[in-house]
Amino acid sequence: MRPRKQPPTETQFIEKIQRITCQSASQRRGVALSIGDDTAALRIRSDRLLLVSCDAVVEGVHFDLNYFSPEDLGWKALAVNLSDIASMGGIPLYATTSIALPMATPVGFVEKVYRGLAMLAAQHRVALIGGDTCASRHGVFLDVTIIGEVHARRMVTRGGARPGDLLYVTGELGGSAMGLELLAGRSRLSRHISSMVRRHLRPQPRCAAGRFLAGQRLASAMIDISDGLSTDLHHLCERSMVGAMIYSDRIPLPRVPSSQINRFSSAPLSYGLNGGEDYELLFTVPQRLRRKVPRSIRGLPVHEIGHITSETGVCWLCQGGRRSRLSPCGFDHFRDGHLTASHRAIR
Amino acid sequence: MRPRKQPPTETQFIEKIQRITCQSASQRRGVALSIGDDTAALRIRSDRLLLVSCDAVVEGVHFDLNYFSPEDLGWKALAVNLSDIASMGGIPLYATTSIALPMATPVGFVEKVYRGLAMLAAQHRVALIGGDTCASRHGVFLDVTIIGEVHARRMVTRGGARPGDLLYVTGELGGSAMGLELLAGRSRLSRHISSMVRRHLRPQPRCAAGRFLAGQRLASAMIDISDGLSTDLHHLCERSMVGAMIYSDRIPLPRVPSSQINRFSSAPLSYGLNGGEDYELLFTVPQRLRRKVPRSIRGLPVHEIGHITSETGVCWLCQGGRRSRLSPCGFDHFRDGHLTASHRAIR
Repeated sequence: MRPRKQPPTETQFIEKIQRITCQSASQRRGVALSIGDDTAALRIRSDRLLLVSCDAVVEGVHFDLNYFSPEDLGWKALAVNLSDIASMGGIPLYATTSIALPMATPVGFVEKVYRGLAMLAAQHRVALIGGDTCASRHGVFLDVTIIGEVHARRMVTRGGARPGDLLYVTGELGGSAMGLELLAGRSRLSRHISSMVRRHLRPQPRCAAGRFLAGQRLASAMIDISDGLSTDLHHLCERSMVGAMIYSDRIPLPRVPSSQINRFSSAPLSYGLNGGEDYELLFTVPQRLRRKVPRSIRGLPVHEIGHITSETGVCWLCQGGRRSRLSPCGFDHFRDGHLTASHRAIR
Repeated sequence: MRPRKQPPTETQFIEKIQRITCQSASQRRGVALSIGDDTAALRIRSDRLLLVSCDAVVEGVHFDLNYFSPEDLGWKALAVNLSDIASMGGIPLYATTSIALPMATPVGFVEKVYRGLAMLAAQHRVALIGGDTCASRHGVFLDVTIIGEVHARRMVTRGGARPGDLLYVTGELGGSAMGLELLAGRSRLSRHISSMVRRHLRPQPRCAAGRFLAGQRLASAMIDISDGLSTDLHHLCERSMVGAMIYSDRIPLPRVPSSQINRFSSAPLSYGLNGGEDYELLFTVPQRLRRKVPRSIRGLPVHEIGHITSETGVCWLCQGGRRSRLSPCGFDHFRDGHLTASHRAIR
């Protein structure tokens, strides 16, 4: 029997692109950072770096219009991009948008998408400076490019973690994926539960926390948790050429009343490790700075969840005193995108 | 009988977006130009403006993979963006890319798309600095954001034309649309004809010409011809609050051997006026500078095709000594995108 051909993974795609774009990035001076981190960084003035990043959301892959309002869609498309600026310690400044829409789309739909974008843009004082509107044959595509800036000596990348550094996350993990499962099930929502749904539809990018951590020079490395803790921890470790150990009982999870727990297909920890789309920050801090890490930043809790080790790319989960290998089981577009039975189908 | 509801036009979409983003652009200082021109412009240093623009290409709307190779696709997605920088008189510097692909896409396809992007990027010394790769349910979507710069006092917009200014275009008009008709018909191509096909698949953005016209302070207004001369002339006139008169016998059209002319559904002039996707530059020059306009810029011919008048938004075509009103009959995504019988169906 011939082995079934595996679909390519996102990593394979990115490696191909990386090889070609690395040559291309050398075309111009001033590229301080290109593909491989949350944003690219360009030297525009001696003391400031311009941060540039883009992320698209696609109907049927990232969102389902059965439960995403057009305003939610606009909000989320900008939020995922602001989150990339947050993880570099930067300030978001400007955004452009490219939207492709089926021909029969009413004008009111577009207006609402832009209202959602503008609402979040206003909260972060981001200017929407233009974009492209075109037709699509099937479904809505919305791509946002975000431009921000950071002081050249304050930028935090994925690559600065060193063995012994402590690992932290902001906020809670797993709520967004739990919210999505509830949305897809379309059951009636209690108050506790609806906060998860909100986390999924209208995530709050952690720009203030990112700037604080960079400004105080606390974070040695940082990434935003978009694909899930297990996957994004691997991204950070690979880029820093280190490993990590995290403790299951320290991972901040949403509180679910016991009466509600059977509404979910998995245990909360599973969502916290692999759920994705929480847009919290995962960062490392050198041991000597531990005392300077606050318990919360402007009301947003900060939790120490483990530490960095020296085995490159190897991550461990310690659970009840026993350690087991932590695999990157968060979202991979080209592995998971075709599933329809799990919550990943509609991410 | 109830009147049939018209699908919304692209202008209606853009007006909605414009209303919302104009408020938003005021969130940040430094926005010199936002939605309504070929690019946005940001004041980053006192003497330089950063130009930012994005344009997406969508499968089944802008291209058909039956006759677009993946390299063509990558090339064209970057070319349409470089053309926007050209029309502002700017220098393109950096580009980001967002690509959404059906799950079953082979890795080799992505590699070839990026090779096409990188080939054109190298010609213009543009650095590809990163992007996003994700899954789509249907078809390929490729969005490029281009970042360039221009001297603050050299930037040319759509809004600077004055009555009496002369109207010029670079190169030839109509070849791209004629090439597309041949591609869609899949007939065998002669040498004359294959240059049209190449114009459609791999347009050459006119960056050097744009920089020359801005650097010499010749152009009072400029736009690139992406939607077709008739439509883009209206865009320029509306923004400048002027009108125009053009002469049909001065419009530079591709030479088609008489043996080949019956391969096309319309007369060459019709493609030249309404075809679109030629990515030539349409610009205006004050009368007193007429003598300074060269016949060609680095081998690219320049043709005077008419002049600017004072009737806002009113354009005339003079043909055989008689004038008739010129309507904007170039491409409109939301009016034309759903046709399948004409060449516009697959633009």
